[in-house]
Amino acid sequence: KTNIDCLTSQKIIRLPGLIDVHVHVREPGATHKEDWSSCTAAALAGGITTILAMPNTNPPTVDMEAYKLTSKLAQQGARCDYGIYAGASSSNFLTLPQMSNKVIALKMYLNDTFTTLKLDDITVWMKHFEHWPKNLPICAHAEDTTTASVILLADLFQRPVHICHLARKSEIMVVKAAKERGLSVTCEAAPHHLFLTSEDLTCIGALRGQVKPPLVTKEDQKALWDNMDIIDCFATDHAPHAVEEKNSAKPPPGFPGLETMLPLLLTAVNDGRLTIEDIVLRLHTNPRRIFGLPEQPDTFVEVDLDHKWTIPTAMPYTKSKWTPFAGHKVRGIVRRVLLRGEVAFVDGEVIAKPGQGIDVKPETLSIPATAAPDVGTSGLGQLSVQISASNAPLNI
Amino acid sequence: KTNIDCLTSQKIIRLPGLIDVHVHVREPGATHKEDWSSCTAAALAGGITTILAMPNTNPPTVDMEAYKLTSKLAQQGARCDYGIYAGASSSNFLTLPQMSNKVIALKMYLNDTFTTLKLDDITVWMKHFEHWPKNLPICAHAEDTTTASVILLADLFQRPVHICHLARKSEIMVVKAAKERGLSVTCEAAPHHLFLTSEDLTCIGALRGQVKPPLVTKEDQKALWDNMDIIDCFATDHAPHAVEEKNSAKPPPGFPGLETMLPLLLTAVNDGRLTIEDIVLRLHTNPRRIFGLPEQPDTFVEVDLDHKWTIPTAMPYTKSKWTPFAGHKVRGIVRRVLLRGEVAFVDGEVIAKPGQGIDVKPETLSIPATAAPDVGTSGLGQLSVQISASNAPLNI
Ligand SMILES: [Zn+2]
Ligand SMILES: [Zn+2]
Ligand SMILES: [Zn+2]
Ligand SMILES: [Zn+2]
Ligand SMILES: [Zn+2]
Ligand SMILES: [Zn+2]
Ligand SMILES: [Zn+2]
Ligand SMILES: [Zn+2]
Repeated sequence: KTNIDCLTSQKIIRLPGLIDVHVHVREPGATHKEDWSSCTAAALAGGITTILAMPNTNPPTVDMEAYKLTSKLAQQGARCDYGIYAGASSSNFLTLPQMSNKVIALKMYLNDTFTTLKLDDITVWMKHFEHWPKNLPICAHAEDTTTASVILLADLFQRPVHICHLARKSEIMVVKAAKERGLSVTCEAAPHHLFLTSEDLTCIGALRGQVKPPLVTKEDQKALWDNMDIIDCFATDHAPHAVEEKNSAKPPPGFPGLETMLPLLLTAVNDGRLTIEDIVLRLHTNPRRIFGLPEQPDTFVEVDLDHKWTIPTAMPYTKSKWTPFAGHKVRGIVRRVLLRGEVAFVDGEVIAKPGQGIDVKPETLSIPATAAPDVGTSGLGQLSVQISASNAPLNI
Repeated sequence: KTNIDCLTSQKIIRLPGLIDVHVHVREPGATHKEDWSSCTAAALAGGITTILAMPNTNPPTVDMEAYKLTSKLAQQGARCDYGIYAGASSSNFLTLPQMSNKVIALKMYLNDTFTTLKLDDITVWMKHFEHWPKNLPICAHAEDTTTASVILLADLFQRPVHICHLARKSEIMVVKAAKERGLSVTCEAAPHHLFLTSEDLTCIGALRGQVKPPLVTKEDQKALWDNMDIIDCFATDHAPHAVEEKNSAKPPPGFPGLETMLPLLLTAVNDGRLTIEDIVLRLHTNPRRIFGLPEQPDTFVEVDLDHKWTIPTAMPYTKSKWTPFAGHKVRGIVRRVLLRGEVAFVDGEVIAKPGQGIDVKPETLSIPATAAPDVGTSGLGQLSVQISASNAPLNI
């Protein structure tokens, strides 16, 4: 309500609770970068009511002991709902399936990473594909031609695979061809690959702008937009680092993204590049289907489609006090989030307390591997989207 | 007949004409390394009656003009029969199919190479897979995880692919899994990967020993031998360089192999690690089937299974005056080669003249894509193998 336009017109629409399937919470191990409380506050401020937490923590979530630690910290700290990934290592392909009833999916790092999670031996990939339960997702960080390699393994072992953060033309063209052949592959794209290219590095800084996969060419970006129907999910790959770390001579790769994704996507709606249905499909319906997630009752997100603002140098809730989108003019903002009947976020303020978030995994144990049909799969009305254009500010 | 053992016993067996599907002739462009005359002399001396010539010449065989030059040089110089590969470039996926009736297969370099033939964009690979005739082979230099990538493309485009020179455990395990799923993939292994490992580099020299794929571990080598049933072809990857080049500070990768492959394989037969049928299957039957090659009438190779000798510092016919197998004690030697009824090699002397070799491709135009059944597919008798153990030297 800081801008004059709010007083003259509002277009409030209601979306179902959004799901970000790719979030680095940083706790345990690096709470100076982020923790469960700050990360889920940022999620709610961004209209996200469920996050799926990546396993490259310290300790990494590669065994039951690390899982229990992460799970306990999540229970105590989470303000929104969450699921926890297991991480594939070179040695845990036999033990990991024993904790498959507790985690949401298996994450495999097939290109460089900094931890013990790096898998550079394809015979180890094959072991994981052989042993991980077929009804639970395998998600792969697989860049460029590695995308094709991991899709072959999914085909050979007759199971689905989800490809994280498509960035390059090569990656989406391979996924497209695989889908056309009927292979069971899904994928996600991150807002920084949809809205930034290597040309933005002059502004962001070549060092601060490091991220994996990197910001690539306009041609790569165009391939993502031209093949939007191939992209199953939007996911932030929220990878917060302290701004001092990002400004250092050897910055770690990764961008925060939870608080900026939805405004950027709503701006694309205002620009006619996306529809609201495109967003709901990729941040609610498809994530639920791919990861077998339960519906969150009485949970929705109210956004003001008209509100124009400029992304500041840092967003309020993440501990990562910078953003690669600083200065971007956007149109669309989250006004209010209801989580299981309670106001979790309203007018810039996170209301939900640490501990209010619940683990989505126990919820899924009673439902079949393929999630129950989503009420919001087709059509705006069914998407629980309500449009109210009014001169009077809504009482939210 | 230099050894005493020849006078006391001989075990001569007759093999069909052997086919080496992976040979770098070096002409046009680098005749100081090898040319059609020297290369095919080395082939005959090694019991090979057909070579398939790789396209990374200078000019590379990427268009009709280069093909015509290579074809003319081959007609003039070849002492044994031959086929010519076309080379995939980043730009010739539409024009290359027009010369598909002249060449034996398409070669794709998917990892580093030194020429314009390097293909690092998987969307270009896809173009070649889309446009190259489905009944003609595509052969790929694809190392490690790239093996899986290219097999996926073959699957997506519903066509066969042949993987060159498997060297690593990762490579053969992926090919094995793909074959078990019924995918249309074939492969070859080179004698230097079957008989040398990185441990031999202390003797060969780390620089001279450079080859692509590199000499790898004993575990990798064991995976090749343990999965011999997965290997469709033996192929030399004969890659001759001048010995001065190999001894330089920046040696080009590659080993000569035509004159040493069969003696090494026969030694493995004597050691009980292979059978004669294993050799004929992988150097005659399968190459004919995979590449649709015609039977060469009245063509066979007589080998002395008992003759023991030590591989010298260089072999007589290749211009590449060194060999990584120098000092290896072998048992088995080529005594005589008949090519289409004429003696082409006997007792160390190449008889066939340049120009006597013919291009196998016109022969294949009249036969179906799947070659006619080979008379020598099962059993020693059908393999035209004759064993005569005699005290008297054969009159050959
Ligand atoms: Zn990643
Ligand atoms: Zn990530
Ligand atoms: Zn406003
Ligand atoms: Zn829903
Ligand atoms: Zn090669
Ligand atoms: Zn080669
Ligand atoms: Zn002898
Ligand atoms: Zn035959």
